[in-house]
Amino acid sequence: MSVIKVAILGFGTVGEGVYKTIHSHAQELEGVLGSKVEVAAVLIRNKQKKRNIDEDVLITSDFNEILSLPQLDVVVEAIVDKEPTFTFLKQAIRRGSHIITANKEMFAHHGNELLELAESHKVSVGFEATVAGGIPVIQTLRQLLNVNRVGTVQGILNGTSNFILTEMREKKQSFAAALRLAQEKGYAEADPTNDVEGFDAFYKTMILSRIAFGKEPNWQNVEREGITSITRELIETAEKLGLRFKHIASISKIGSQINAAVKPTLVGKSHPFYGVEGVENAVNVHSDIVGRITLQGPGAGMFPTASAVIEDLVYVCQNQLSNKNFTNITEACDGEKKGNEKELWLIQGLSKNDNNPLITWVAQATDETAIIQASREEIEKLINQQKATCYFQIIGEYEKEIKNKEVTLAVL
Amino acid sequence: MSVIKVAILGFGTVGEGVYKTIHSHAQELEGVLGSKVEVAAVLIRNKQKKRNIDEDVLITSDFNEILSLPQLDVVVEAIVDKEPTFTFLKQAIRRGSHIITANKEMFAHHGNELLELAESHKVSVGFEATVAGGIPVIQTLRQLLNVNRVGTVQGILNGTSNFILTEMREKKQSFAAALRLAQEKGYAEADPTNDVEGFDAFYKTMILSRIAFGKEPNWQNVEREGITSITRELIETAEKLGLRFKHIASISKIGSQINAAVKPTLVGKSHPFYGVEGVENAVNVHSDIVGRITLQGPGAGMFPTASAVIEDLVYVCQNQLSNKNFTNITEACDGEKKGNEKELWLIQGLSKNDNNPLITWVAQATDETAIIQASREEIEKLINQQKATCYFQIIGEYEKEIKNKEVTLAVL
Repeated sequence: MSVIKVAILGFGTVGEGVYKTIHSHAQELEGVLGSKVEVAAVLIRNKQKKRNIDEDVLITSDFNEILSLPQLDVVVEAIVDKEPTFTFLKQAIRRGSHIITANKEMFAHHGNELLELAESHKVSVGFEATVAGGIPVIQTLRQLLNVNRVGTVQGILNGTSNFILTEMREKKQSFAAALRLAQEKGYAEADPTNDVEGFDAFYKTMILSRIAFGKEPNWQNVEREGITSITRELIETAEKLGLRFKHIASISKIGSQINAAVKPTLVGKSHPFYGVEGVENAVNVHSDIVGRITLQGPGAGMFPTASAVIEDLVYVCQNQLSNKNFTNITEACDGEKKGNEKELWLIQGLSKNDNNPLITWVAQATDETAIIQASREEIEKLINQQKATCYFQIIGEYEKEIKNKEVTLAVL
Repeated sequence: MSVIKVAILGFGTVGEGVYKTIHSHAQELEGVLGSKVEVAAVLIRNKQKKRNIDEDVLITSDFNEILSLPQLDVVVEAIVDKEPTFTFLKQAIRRGSHIITANKEMFAHHGNELLELAESHKVSVGFEATVAGGIPVIQTLRQLLNVNRVGTVQGILNGTSNFILTEMREKKQSFAAALRLAQEKGYAEADPTNDVEGFDAFYKTMILSRIAFGKEPNWQNVEREGITSITRELIETAEKLGLRFKHIASISKIGSQINAAVKPTLVGKSHPFYGVEGVENAVNVHSDIVGRITLQGPGAGMFPTASAVIEDLVYVCQNQLSNKNFTNITEACDGEKKGNEKELWLIQGLSKNDNNPLITWVAQATDETAIIQASREEIEKLINQQKATCYFQIIGEYEKEIKNKEVTLAVL
């Protein structure tokens, strides 16, 4: 029987998960691929550290040793940072190996170059694990895209932020306390910037945009806001109104223009993201034939991410992954739309006495906050004029919930 | 350019949706398949009825005319009933055509024979549209199954029942009134038995079981209960407890045994099905590597179902559908597990004074109903002894919700 030789770069959470899963599911892999899958090498930084790796596996901190292996079918990359990862993967492709990556930052920056290089070397690139961990969102999008035209994609793409927002709401904690807990549980890094400032979600959003629309917006034009401005008080106010804060990425295509934003948003009970709590991720795809589909599941963690990598492993070995969705991506597009449609907002600091005919007052929520209906343009004017301090969009069918009396709006 | 010739059997909601989508998305189909897709024939019952079908399409009520077409690549079946559909599809396979079906009743009964026949004639069978309309649950399961071992699948598989339960709760209506509305909206047939008594969900469950586990339980042993016993009062009681009734199919595999049930079940706020409302469907897959994944979307309707058929059309034309998951299905298994584990129940008619050390009293809900913790065995004893009138299982993390004070249990 033939053997598929795999190298794993990095032996952190994801790398170790992939290693363990290749062992624990050896029989399934052999069944589906008709070949035995063997880990031939693991790239690590510190050779002294004790690890639970079989003796016949090459353990090295020198990537050239891996490139020199007599057989190397697939390189799985589970490191962080853009470099030297990008260089390693280019070398692996040139050597004729398929590559699979879980590194969103690197892939958001260099995905296109890798896919083009892979195309010319007749190998495949798997990147399911870069977005939403174990949820098969990239495969599902590709499948839908066979015939559907996708209009909007929304996602809760950062499990750490979602965990923090859930903790703050459920246990009435401050942002700082919830972040500490996330760090204790291993959900957040010592430097949590990437997660709580929305960078991680931003990279994933750009990857999703390329899959869904074949291109991405100009990065500079995308509104990116993290969750650090969300206070316990805001969360409590929202809760009383039947709303929850979620850190939501949204990408939509209107004509040839791509609009995208990654920021805290309010959702009502009828939105499928309302019940997505803790470290869960979710993705919502609106497309023309099928309508709205939501996928929800574990967005990170050792085994969910490993599962995504292993699925890619199956696809690249079966030559079922094409690189084609990624060819047309250099178009520069706008970021968030500057629409004139009236939308719902939770706004802080606005006085009801400040009569403005372009704004509809829906309800006073607390002394400080109110729900209003206005266009984005008007909202931004209010902020510029310092008539309001902050604002959050309410998405979903909240108006219907108000009408159906599923929420109680206490009017002061 | 080559042409793919398709016949559509039936021109009801699904058949017409497929016809329209092949036209509206001709360019996308040509792009992905490299061939033009043409509807060559439509099988109808009444030739006199006026339909919006192009002149060059053969419209006939005689299937033999379709079988005699010089080219016939794919037969899409969108009729109801087991016969003559099954016979037609066998003839189509023998003629060398791929087949795609949206007919769950027929496919639950004869799927295996069709797949075996297709295998021997080197054609494919698409049946994504038989379960959960536009939600790509069958493809997702197949994909997960490449390496994951699935433990449990839960689903809200009947949009009509879910719509009725939602209407009863939101508008405080009786079952009869909600059913009438479902009929007016075209969600329910004049004879709603198939939907409200759980037969439709049952067939879908058996199809899911074959995909997930390669076999299905003995049909006689599967508990199948519809929603006709759910009263407005029960729904109100549940609502006060932070619970919602959902008609849930569940299938799980323990060792080599498959357990399945299709019945009204209560879910708390933390269960991903809590917010699945109206005609939406949802499927929840628990598997060993990835954990729990939930898919939610439109379970029926002209275009969602057409989308599933069109996806299958792409797959069968690309020869990407294998029939292999369906080969090992004749094992007879048990239905619902008869476990000794303590579970949570909403029970009606039980008196707290009826001391029973095997039952833990959690809370009195109304004069009539209470939440208790007990094994299924104990619950069934109570019913047999006429000490209680009816009972519904509570699934999800309701105990955690009680502990976190997310629900208020009014103890009388």
